[in-house]
Amino acid sequence: MICVQKYGGSSLASPDLIKRVARQVISQKKRGKDMVVVVSAMKDTTDELLRLAYQVAKEPPRRETDMLLTVGERISMSLLSMAINSLGFEAISFTGSQCGIITDSRHTNARIKDVRPFRIEEELAKGKIVVVAGFQGVSEEKEVTTLGRGGSDTTAVALAYALRAKECEILTDVDGVFTADPRVVPQARRLPHLSYEEMLELASFGGKVLHPRSVELALKFRIPLAVRSSFSLRQGTLIKEMGKVEKICVRAVACRKGMAVLFLTLPKVKGKGISPIFRSLSDADVNIDLLSKGEGGGIALSLRREYLPSAERVLGELKRQGLLDNYSVLDGLASVSIIGSGIGENPGIATKLFSALEAEGIKVGFCSSSRLSITSLVVEGAAERATRILHRAFELDKAEG
Amino acid sequence: MICVQKYGGSSLASPDLIKRVARQVISQKKRGKDMVVVVSAMKDTTDELLRLAYQVAKEPPRRETDMLLTVGERISMSLLSMAINSLGFEAISFTGSQCGIITDSRHTNARIKDVRPFRIEEELAKGKIVVVAGFQGVSEEKEVTTLGRGGSDTTAVALAYALRAKECEILTDVDGVFTADPRVVPQARRLPHLSYEEMLELASFGGKVLHPRSVELALKFRIPLAVRSSFSLRQGTLIKEMGKVEKICVRAVACRKGMAVLFLTLPKVKGKGISPIFRSLSDADVNIDLLSKGEGGGIALSLRREYLPSAERVLGELKRQGLLDNYSVLDGLASVSIIGSGIGENPGIATKLFSALEAEGIKVGFCSSSRLSITSLVVEGAAERATRILHRAFELDKAEG
Repeated sequence: MICVQKYGGSSLASPDLIKRVARQVISQKKRGKDMVVVVSAMKDTTDELLRLAYQVAKEPPRRETDMLLTVGERISMSLLSMAINSLGFEAISFTGSQCGIITDSRHTNARIKDVRPFRIEEELAKGKIVVVAGFQGVSEEKEVTTLGRGGSDTTAVALAYALRAKECEILTDVDGVFTADPRVVPQARRLPHLSYEEMLELASFGGKVLHPRSVELALKFRIPLAVRSSFSLRQGTLIKEMGKVEKICVRAVACRKGMAVLFLTLPKVKGKGISPIFRSLSDADVNIDLLSKGEGGGIALSLRREYLPSAERVLGELKRQGLLDNYSVLDGLASVSIIGSGIGENPGIATKLFSALEAEGIKVGFCSSSRLSITSLVVEGAAERATRILHRAFELDKAEG
Repeated sequence: MICVQKYGGSSLASPDLIKRVARQVISQKKRGKDMVVVVSAMKDTTDELLRLAYQVAKEPPRRETDMLLTVGERISMSLLSMAINSLGFEAISFTGSQCGIITDSRHTNARIKDVRPFRIEEELAKGKIVVVAGFQGVSEEKEVTTLGRGGSDTTAVALAYALRAKECEILTDVDGVFTADPRVVPQARRLPHLSYEEMLELASFGGKVLHPRSVELALKFRIPLAVRSSFSLRQGTLIKEMGKVEKICVRAVACRKGMAVLFLTLPKVKGKGISPIFRSLSDADVNIDLLSKGEGGGIALSLRREYLPSAERVLGELKRQGLLDNYSVLDGLASVSIIGSGIGENPGIATKLFSALEAEGIKVGFCSSSRLSITSLVVEGAAERATRILHRAFELDKAEG
């Protein structure tokens, strides 16, 4: 039985922690599992490498950035493999390229196109523990690529699929997925299970435990994901197919700071509507999160603050071309979202959200909902308080009935 | 015209030094040269990585050590490539594997079997500066290997040959090859040129500027090597084919500490002679430097101290098998060698060496000569003094006539 485990950077932050992970992997191996261990870079390594890069170049070429950053996982994979070997179990480490993670050529944010894990299968057949560098792959042009943020989780899920693994565990520094960030809401409760769709929505709206891309992939291939702490033996959260949900209920609150809103007024005459605007923003790699049409026919878009410079460049150009009448920016916002299957289609839940926040004097500027979530924008300074208010209003500290 | 330059770790020790190297490479490129730049790991990186390895494992497997150590050159190659790009010149970096350095499978000490630099040639044809990770290669089993000490010099020479480069420059932190180590002999003089054979002998007997393997390769392929400082514009040392040497003269003094001698007595009856002893030592990877037959029929072998444990294990076993009567060890020695074409065949020079040392009260315990060198063993504490005495006795501070 193949088990894929992924350990994050904080679980591998020092030689002692690496030895600890080695013992954990061996304890699984002793239970007869064929172990494939995906590792991130040791904590802070990636930041240190990037700091070096920006010391020698203002805009490091992405291809060279990938060459540099992949070093981080190579260090942790070889050290973990050494640690396992020194405890008397055979281990072998593989880079993304060696274990057949084939990607497209989008350096620093490549997508996995294929997984050809022949070498992993060979070594598992010999009884070895296989340690794999997460976050990295190789393009068909034999260039080293990286998968962007959360890439090691994505590596783990892709390998679990390609190897038909029975288990895929994401080992991290928290006990699983919670009803809210426990640092913000002390009453936050660990969720024993979540559907893929709920986890995807939670990850997209600020839940930090897993990256949306890895959840997307798990959903696509129906790989159950166990998220738990590498520092405790506590049970974590299982993300899996949940079947038909019997009842609509709010399951978690997520919060994202650093948001902004763009208000657009379209030209009254000879306008071509919203689509050329969307296309131009998308071409400039600006991710738009929420969209709503205001009363006066204007349009409001929310986005992360880091996309503002590119977005304003695009909108200025569209205005010059007459495709946009005018735009304004509102910065310093946070999004607060509630997540749960079916809640977006239930107007009673949205009403409860508004009244809970307004009762405490928090103005909701902007709101949007999908089948699985309702998101409101509030001023950034009120983000934590709004999260706590909603956690209480929807009684998320109580076990689900 | 292709020019291969190799920069050592001290020339790349910081982001500022890397930018400095980038400017030097560009200045060559501006002169119309097709530049291939081989880099070592930034100073101290390799030691730091090894320290991590020994913190997780007492005896790190060699394959994993190679995975770990090759990280060092990847960091410096991507940073140098970024620095060159940021100065407006196109550069691309390649790992040993990507630029076709094919080796055997002897991890941590692999030998180059073939060089297939297709990707380098392609990128040079596009006008790019190519930056290559030194010290590393890939085996035919697609395993990452390293070339052992001095490996980056070897990479540079091998690429210069495969690319038919017109120039191969070894850029380091000293001004070239000197008549002796300038830290030991302040009067030491830079040698403007040396023959391959002299350089090889000098490197073997403790000259630290180049590793013997890279010189061997340069000799084999007749690649002229320019050794100079990356920190100054001064002329360095050119290592090349010297034609017939007109006169026999001592050209340099080299010194190696950490030496020991093994004295062996062979059995009088049923002995099989010295050859099974040599074979056993060689099988245990013990390198023997010098050999002399003593008066009583005994044999003396000199070797580096680090080989003593393995050597004693082998000799103990041979003694049990009756192939060896007895052995003893003399530790705490240094070798002091004088180097120059033809000097070993000139008894007058050996006599001069003995009398110069003995006149200053230094006892010469053990001596050996080859065509290109005469080596004597002295107590370790007298090594520096012996070097200075010989440098003076052979008037190496004076320019060659």
